[in-house]
Amino acid sequence: MSILCVGSVALDSVETPFGKAERVLGGSAVFFSAAATFFSPVRIVGVVGDDYPRADLAFLEKRGADLSGIETRPGESFFWAGRYHYDLNTRDTLETRLGVFADFRPRIPEGFRDSRHVFLGNIAPQLQQDVLDHVDAPEVVACDTMNYWIEGSRKELLSLLERVHILLVNDEEVRQLADEPNLLKASRWIRERGPSLIVVKKGEHGAMLFADGWVFFTPGYPLENVFDPTGAGDAFAGGFMGHVARSGSLDPTELRRAMVFGSVMGSYSVEDFSVDRFKRLDPADVVRRAWEFREMTAFEAHVEEHRV
Amino acid sequence: MSILCVGSVALDSVETPFGKAERVLGGSAVFFSAAATFFSPVRIVGVVGDDYPRADLAFLEKRGADLSGIETRPGESFFWAGRYHYDLNTRDTLETRLGVFADFRPRIPEGFRDSRHVFLGNIAPQLQQDVLDHVDAPEVVACDTMNYWIEGSRKELLSLLERVHILLVNDEEVRQLADEPNLLKASRWIRERGPSLIVVKKGEHGAMLFADGWVFFTPGYPLENVFDPTGAGDAFAGGFMGHVARSGSLDPTELRRAMVFGSVMGSYSVEDFSVDRFKRLDPADVVRRAWEFREMTAFEAHVEEHRV
Repeated sequence: MSILCVGSVALDSVETPFGKAERVLGGSAVFFSAAATFFSPVRIVGVVGDDYPRADLAFLEKRGADLSGIETRPGESFFWAGRYHYDLNTRDTLETRLGVFADFRPRIPEGFRDSRHVFLGNIAPQLQQDVLDHVDAPEVVACDTMNYWIEGSRKELLSLLERVHILLVNDEEVRQLADEPNLLKASRWIRERGPSLIVVKKGEHGAMLFADGWVFFTPGYPLENVFDPTGAGDAFAGGFMGHVARSGSLDPTELRRAMVFGSVMGSYSVEDFSVDRFKRLDPADVVRRAWEFREMTAFEAHVEEHRV
Repeated sequence: MSILCVGSVALDSVETPFGKAERVLGGSAVFFSAAATFFSPVRIVGVVGDDYPRADLAFLEKRGADLSGIETRPGESFFWAGRYHYDLNTRDTLETRLGVFADFRPRIPEGFRDSRHVFLGNIAPQLQQDVLDHVDAPEVVACDTMNYWIEGSRKELLSLLERVHILLVNDEEVRQLADEPNLLKASRWIRERGPSLIVVKKGEHGAMLFADGWVFFTPGYPLENVFDPTGAGDAFAGGFMGHVARSGSLDPTELRRAMVFGSVMGSYSVEDFSVDRFKRLDPADVVRRAWEFREMTAFEAHVEEHRV
């Protein structure tokens, strides 16, 4: 089943200790789709300026992404430039130019309205609401957000969450939204306000799923070289939602797998600049790394004898 | 099989957002043993002042700890006072008085010399070496250390590590010892210098085992209330080494279980002040929580169909 994905389609200039990339494909919708299309078709809604190298998105189309919802408008595309530090856990934003993204009003093409799975990338909660208003019968709505909206558009965000099934955010955002340092309590606070599932992305520390009465955990995949962390969280969301849409189920068995596929895609994402790793990724690589996650976490709980 | 454990036997005064405890049992050897004795007998070597409430250690003796290696010397016991902040991830040390621990020279009783499993708690590397010199034929040697020794006694520490099989430290210490931010690379650097197994404790983010060609991961157990984090790392070491000694094996299957039992004991440790949680812990609770860890991490890697 196709996933409707709304988010940024951007150009990034990135410096890491390993190198430099200039004006390469970026943005939440691009990273999401590059990962999600390994599992399900995606319909992208976004906006770019007339400077955008649209031809570079052709690889997404080949994988089953429908790009007809990406508007081209006169002006400059969303541009972000950043530099990662030695340990790759901190970064400086060198430049942000919103360009045509500043006035982004998502327009949902007629043919996208029957989407059952929706991923609302990190844009204003009012716009995320607006997108939902233009989908006929959304079955699974996932959304991302950030500190900017938690602080500045809290009311609108909480109102949006009533219509959301899965909140996908990082640990800082969960804590900030619920004003509670304990993740278990913070997730419960949010779950009482709408989303029945909270996916907490913790970067190198892995990810957690808080559900009704159960919790699931995936580790960060240990990599010798994190080449470029940009977009890892969106790639995680893509792997997660891609599997959710593919399986058509929110059963614990499928949600667990979705978490693992999210982790797999997040881990591949950081192995190269931009979405380059996904361009040369084989579906067999995805399956292979899922098994590696199993090797990293599986154990026999049963112990014959127990002292004392 | 009995574990020889050398470390501090202390008194702690602790303040957390949930309450206050004055001059309660603390120290690495105490937390280690309170956890390890659920799996294996322990022989403790340490020193206390004549102010120490030795009778309070009776519960350890009942569980199978041999306290005959705890010397009582004239003077004050090692005393630590600290206060945890709101989110419990940071703490202030209010007071440290080393007392008789300042001149601690571990004396290994004759009857302890045949120990096959040794845990060297966080003391000077020279003293840790000294302990090993007084054990006839140690089979599995695990040790802890801290930034103080990594900085000030680096040469002695590296010399000790040549005789150590398992290094149990936190992520900061691994990075500092190897002078390398990447945990995988840092662990390999250390593994090339002696210990074939590196256990990295990451607090709320879980723990990782780096072994020869494989990695294993356990999450932090999600608790609504972390009551008092003091000693969690030592309790982890106790659960880990307790199972290693019980199983008598360093096979991957048993090492994985050891990691889980370490996590289980670490998680119970923080549920109350001092070692109080272990006093009312049932072996069945240990097994139950190990199964919970399985529920938190187990998934079916096999997926029937795969798109693309």
